[in-house]
Amino acid sequence: MDYAEAVRSGNRLALARLLTLVENGDPEGRKAMDALFPYTGQAHLIGVTGSPGTGKSSLVNQLALAYRRPTAGAAARRVAIVAVDPSSPFSGGALLGDRVRMRDLSGDPGIFIRSMASRGTVGGLARATAAVVQVLDAAGYEIILVETVGAGQSEVDIARLAHTTLVVEAPGLGDDIQASKAGILEIADILVVNKGDRPGVESTERFLRNMLEIAHPEMQDEAGNETGSGNKKTGWIPPILRTVATRNSGIQQVLEAIENHKAYLQSSGEWQRRDRDRLLFELNAILRDQLYARWRQSLPEGAYNHAIDLLMERKQSIYSILEALLQYHA
Amino acid sequence: MDYAEAVRSGNRLALARLLTLVENGDPEGRKAMDALFPYTGQAHLIGVTGSPGTGKSSLVNQLALAYRRPTAGAAARRVAIVAVDPSSPFSGGALLGDRVRMRDLSGDPGIFIRSMASRGTVGGLARATAAVVQVLDAAGYEIILVETVGAGQSEVDIARLAHTTLVVEAPGLGDDIQASKAGILEIADILVVNKGDRPGVESTERFLRNMLEIAHPEMQDEAGNETGSGNKKTGWIPPILRTVATRNSGIQQVLEAIENHKAYLQSSGEWQRRDRDRLLFELNAILRDQLYARWRQSLPEGAYNHAIDLLMERKQSIYSILEALLQYHA
Repeated sequence: MDYAEAVRSGNRLALARLLTLVENGDPEGRKAMDALFPYTGQAHLIGVTGSPGTGKSSLVNQLALAYRRPTAGAAARRVAIVAVDPSSPFSGGALLGDRVRMRDLSGDPGIFIRSMASRGTVGGLARATAAVVQVLDAAGYEIILVETVGAGQSEVDIARLAHTTLVVEAPGLGDDIQASKAGILEIADILVVNKGDRPGVESTERFLRNMLEIAHPEMQDEAGNETGSGNKKTGWIPPILRTVATRNSGIQQVLEAIENHKAYLQSSGEWQRRDRDRLLFELNAILRDQLYARWRQSLPEGAYNHAIDLLMERKQSIYSILEALLQYHA
Repeated sequence: MDYAEAVRSGNRLALARLLTLVENGDPEGRKAMDALFPYTGQAHLIGVTGSPGTGKSSLVNQLALAYRRPTAGAAARRVAIVAVDPSSPFSGGALLGDRVRMRDLSGDPGIFIRSMASRGTVGGLARATAAVVQVLDAAGYEIILVETVGAGQSEVDIARLAHTTLVVEAPGLGDDIQASKAGILEIADILVVNKGDRPGVESTERFLRNMLEIAHPEMQDEAGNETGSGNKKTGWIPPILRTVATRNSGIQQVLEAIENHKAYLQSSGEWQRRDRDRLLFELNAILRDQLYARWRQSLPEGAYNHAIDLLMERKQSIYSILEALLQYHA
């Protein structure tokens, strides 16, 4: 089967199969990716992340549905959703949310959904996600929503893949989460306070605004611009938007913010820069794997295990072992 | 200053300085680690992880205090706490919880506390954590508690460093979290339901027990052993323990479970195996960095940037670029 051609002609079954090949690092998948590569670079890659319990999945569903409706300004867009679950390294934990999701979105040929669980390491997962996104891009999906469960470094790695990153919060998630927000806020292009009909929404928004003001001191100067929307002189300041995804409230404003961010990226040259970063990240990850594999092959039989034994017995330190091992690669 | 000697003689200031050198990859830190390496391999490394809001930090504090009290069976132990915050890649988000912690534990020379924020990538963080733990081990801390904020792949990477991993849960954290538990449960040696005085604690425990039974079908055979404590014939089955850390309730049971797990690890040979895995992980991470750095140095001026330009223009695919670049390393 010529996967590249089948995928380009809109064959969904071929697409699903190719994604599996690509995730598994199959050579046939690699061949198809090579053929598809010239068609990539078209999609708007949108990362959606945030702590558990914020209602990310509902928000992603509503965004997908909204993109499917033609509006005065734009035709319906083809949407792919990639749901990544870095907390499930061994089994298919990503499937649970997926089943709920399928109920709402299945049957629309303009939507494609893919779940991914971890591939053993975050590096592996980020790489597999990058490859899957690349195939979906070449397959003609104009909007690719990459949703990650949890709130950790994995999200940062995956955010690196996106042009636009939405960080989703919800009212009343406690001090522990507040403390961990500082980091995740720094990757946010758009902040969404979902479950906005719950008590405490104002205090969550106030907290986020305070955090943003620390990160963007120039906000203080624009007293009249309380929503903190983009400002070309000072770069992009993430807007804070309130939604109730389960009632489809506030979704249109999120869509507009995403479009504003895209316009900002394109006019500022950021779009190109993020594209470049993403390709670099992918290339370097694969390079590291290949260099390591080649080096391992160049080692004499038993040299590696012997080195580990010396380590275990604390006879040599890691760095002296390292020097000895790297000599095989002079 | 001879850091290795100063650290071995109990100089806390030297220890703090050495940890900073080690975290920053400073050559002087590396030299000291080499000298300290023969003294490592003594500590019991205990990972404590779980979702935000479960009260991990309070639990870790209480465990540390309990280890400081001599009991009938054992003398007071020297305890180090390493608080890792993978969600804070850019700034020092780890500091917040730390200030609270200092109030309770400071002033005891038998306790050493270290906070770590992310080093850009999870790989980097896990590696820096491994190095910090190694130094604390050589410094004579017998119990090293490694606490991670968040619930993601980062925890899995950091759990790899521990002999014993505690996964902390709390009642009533919602469906989204339930879904993500499947993965984190697979790294748990001991399950702690903290905030055990809150409503819903029984249903959380029931959920965890069901998940465990799926993972350990042999549990079904021991109807009489509802606590699911260790069983030598079938390997280790994680016990589920209830605590209220803020009231110091259930802490002694957690300590006992940790001791049981240590006995199980040592009698089964698992202790050795986990030690070996940890050293392998560290060695391979450093090897990859070194191989990559050497290769980059071997590239002709401009070759790398030219390759990236071809990628950006979609003129060559990642894999064909890769082949071209790797030829410089024939």
